[in-house]
Amino acid sequence: MSPENDRTRRPFAMDEAVQILSRTPSTLDAQLRGLPDGWVNAHEGGQTWSPFDVVGHLIHGEQTDWIPRTRMILEEGESRAFEKFDRFAQFDASRNRTLPSLLDEFAALRRENLRQLAALHLTEADLDRRGRHPELGVVTMRQLLATWVAHDLDHLMQISRVLARQYSDEVGPWRAYLRVISGNQG
Amino acid sequence: MSPENDRTRRPFAMDEAVQILSRTPSTLDAQLRGLPDGWVNAHEGGQTWSPFDVVGHLIHGEQTDWIPRTRMILEEGESRAFEKFDRFAQFDASRNRTLPSLLDEFAALRRENLRQLAALHLTEADLDRRGRHPELGVVTMRQLLATWVAHDLDHLMQISRVLARQYSDEVGPWRAYLRVISGNQG
Repeated sequence: MSPENDRTRRPFAMDEAVQILSRTPSTLDAQLRGLPDGWVNAHEGGQTWSPFDVVGHLIHGEQTDWIPRTRMILEEGESRAFEKFDRFAQFDASRNRTLPSLLDEFAALRRENLRQLAALHLTEADLDRRGRHPELGVVTMRQLLATWVAHDLDHLMQISRVLARQYSDEVGPWRAYLRVISGNQG
Repeated sequence: MSPENDRTRRPFAMDEAVQILSRTPSTLDAQLRGLPDGWVNAHEGGQTWSPFDVVGHLIHGEQTDWIPRTRMILEEGESRAFEKFDRFAQFDASRNRTLPSLLDEFAALRRENLRQLAALHLTEADLDRRGRHPELGVVTMRQLLATWVAHDLDHLMQISRVLARQYSDEVGPWRAYLRVISGNQG
């Protein structure tokens, strides 16, 4: 299959990445704002995350991960490893917050970060610049920015999964057809 | 764990189900409207579906599945099986359509179907009424309506997964951390 006909992979393109990144706050807002607390705080058992936890995690990413790492690649290249990302920061940071206030904060941070990204005027050559991840080793700017996009979508997927599974019992025999509940991907 | 502290399951409640069902059109709209065609038509290979295909499938569900089956349960109970649902109807029905027009149609159908659902004034006793699924056998109204909700969320999950996997290669070593790409659920 020629690359232009391959519908399973897209090459990274800055304008397309920004189109997806800019849609995440409004997508979360449409899906979650105003839902009853029982759904906002639903999870999948044990230490799994609720939609509320996920939004806090996305906020922490805006504050400490994507743009700060972009700047580190530009300024320090491979010479210094990124700060480790704290996957649990939201449990303290979101305490006593409401979901609407987290959604507002995420939207504002994302808007500002996309503004900063645009202001960097990254070139194709910049996308090949390399940085150092504390665990993964050498990574490129292109990989970092593609991961920003995929990470958003990973967590959007998680939220729909967490919500759907609340009805794992209520759907009765339809469970067999619902891949989100049966766990089959198809 | 007492049921009221169990964050992994919600009992079916009509008002909550409607809150989720009413959010699906705007969630899809926020995520998809205006995305480049390459993303709207992205899929996971073989006969898997694109976001465009999924929206067409949701339209067909509004037209032939959820409310028609609700009415059949009320009118015929277990005496007659539901019509089979055509999982491939959208491939003809969506031909030569645009994504924006499908999004508009889905939103209008969902609004009308939720209006019809409200007009039925279903009671708790109605939720226990039984119908007959052509393959699954006896099902209840409660199970049908819970499945409507979970089915929406299943396909929202699918859309985020399809989009994310377009960057399976572009994310480089981060692939290991992205459950949407690695296929691990966590």
